[in-house]
Amino acid sequence: MLLLKLFLFFSFFSSTFSHDLHPLPRPLIIQYPEGIETHFHEFDDELKSQCTSWRFAVEANNLSPWKTIPEECLGYVKDYMTGRGYEMDLERVSKEAGVYANTLELSGDGKYVWIFDIDETLLSNLPYYVEHGYGLEIFDPIEFDKWVQRGTAPAIEPSLQLYEKVLDLGFKIFLLTGRNEQHRSITIENLTKAGFRRWDKLILRNAFSYPAGIVVTDVNRGLIPVTIVLCRGREHHGKLATVFKSEKRSEMVEEGYRILGNSGDQWSDLPGAAASSRSFKLLNPMYYIP
Amino acid sequence: MLLLKLFLFFSFFSSTFSHDLHPLPRPLIIQYPEGIETHFHEFDDELKSQCTSWRFAVEANNLSPWKTIPEECLGYVKDYMTGRGYEMDLERVSKEAGVYANTLELSGDGKYVWIFDIDETLLSNLPYYVEHGYGLEIFDPIEFDKWVQRGTAPAIEPSLQLYEKVLDLGFKIFLLTGRNEQHRSITIENLTKAGFRRWDKLILRNAFSYPAGIVVTDVNRGLIPVTIVLCRGREHHGKLATVFKSEKRSEMVEEGYRILGNSGDQWSDLPGAAASSRSFKLLNPMYYIP
Repeated sequence: MLLLKLFLFFSFFSSTFSHDLHPLPRPLIIQYPEGIETHFHEFDDELKSQCTSWRFAVEANNLSPWKTIPEECLGYVKDYMTGRGYEMDLERVSKEAGVYANTLELSGDGKYVWIFDIDETLLSNLPYYVEHGYGLEIFDPIEFDKWVQRGTAPAIEPSLQLYEKVLDLGFKIFLLTGRNEQHRSITIENLTKAGFRRWDKLILRNAFSYPAGIVVTDVNRGLIPVTIVLCRGREHHGKLATVFKSEKRSEMVEEGYRILGNSGDQWSDLPGAAASSRSFKLLNPMYYIP
Repeated sequence: MLLLKLFLFFSFFSSTFSHDLHPLPRPLIIQYPEGIETHFHEFDDELKSQCTSWRFAVEANNLSPWKTIPEECLGYVKDYMTGRGYEMDLERVSKEAGVYANTLELSGDGKYVWIFDIDETLLSNLPYYVEHGYGLEIFDPIEFDKWVQRGTAPAIEPSLQLYEKVLDLGFKIFLLTGRNEQHRSITIENLTKAGFRRWDKLILRNAFSYPAGIVVTDVNRGLIPVTIVLCRGREHHGKLATVFKSEKRSEMVEEGYRILGNSGDQWSDLPGAAASSRSFKLLNPMYYIP
């Protein structure tokens, strides 16, 4: 957009001079064609509407798996993530979940569970994404792992409030994350530092020997063909996040737990086998995990 | 908002005169406090952001069942529904669904199904809602039934395009709607008139003897307590839409069909038992059916 404006600016600038037959320089008055500002606004509005529409498609789970945000929506996503919009949406989903949690009557058997995802649900990686194009750069698992190892991701405050509430109401809290076991201790350290004071289970993906980011498909081990799909670095342990999380929820149900609430920023956190009675989708226009 | 602006306008107007000690009328120059226009814009922007946030919560399925749109969002919803926003979103979801449909390889056994809901999916009741507050009025099943009986609901054009495409690709088309059997013939007439040229099943809800709109709960019939929850008029036959539609999908699967696509404007159309491989949520900020 900025480039377009600059381009138009210099086009008019040069045309002012190129058609100039006066021997002396004319005063530097750049005459925009009538209505050019209006056109800019219309273009901005149209682009904003298109990006909003794209974001609705993301949040309603209508899109096929996508790897980066649309290039033209970079400014839009940046404004949303760093402005009031994201904050407002996080507050709303936390509040809605809290209202629902309050309506539930838990018997004393300690088997009522609220599941939380971690990244972009309890902890914010926005400081990382600010440095990496708000989802416009292809995900770099090595760089991202370095960020995770710093253990400095801040809490998503509205989620922390919900967390405190469901703890106080007597829920068991299970953290179910696509992070892998090699990040267990730094994840505990980061969560604790960010104010998440206790949980009942922290379920990470099993460590796997493939380096993050390598994509291996149709590996044939002896007589057994094995298909390993390595997706985003943090989801790279042989199965899709949606399968991994469904399996883990099913195990909880088999152990006699009742999953009444589930908060996550990805659709792969929420539906599927042993889905929670209610799910809460935190908004995330920066990346997609299948 | 308009009232507020008028109120402020007349407040400044009257204060201009009430403090006037001049014997003759001063020229009518109304001096707004500095920045008043900016404040109006900020207020508008904040309200717009709040309503957008609410709409995201609707489309991400984060809200508890709701009966009307938020009063303060009436203008916002009206602008969205009658402006470019709704149209753009409908086009996007149709396009996404079409791209997905194209990737599917159907064998020749004729057992591949695409499910479509009807209201706000194939047919638009917007002409009705324009007259009934865009979802601000409490749903009136008797009035709505009169509208349905007119049989004049127009096609949602992007859905018609998708419909044609999946027909051409060889899908069986099953229409699964919360409309009840008493509207079968007018529904067929309306669909045909709107351009939907053929389908393989049209599944409506069984006619039920309770008049539309009556709410009966905890009816005790002899020794068996029966709870009947009558929801919106069109969904009033003893069970929630989400249960009815899940049951019907399960029957399809039992009959050997494979549900590969499902388009609906309500979350009660989409997840649950025998969910489709991919679901497409058309946007609808006007009403909610549980």
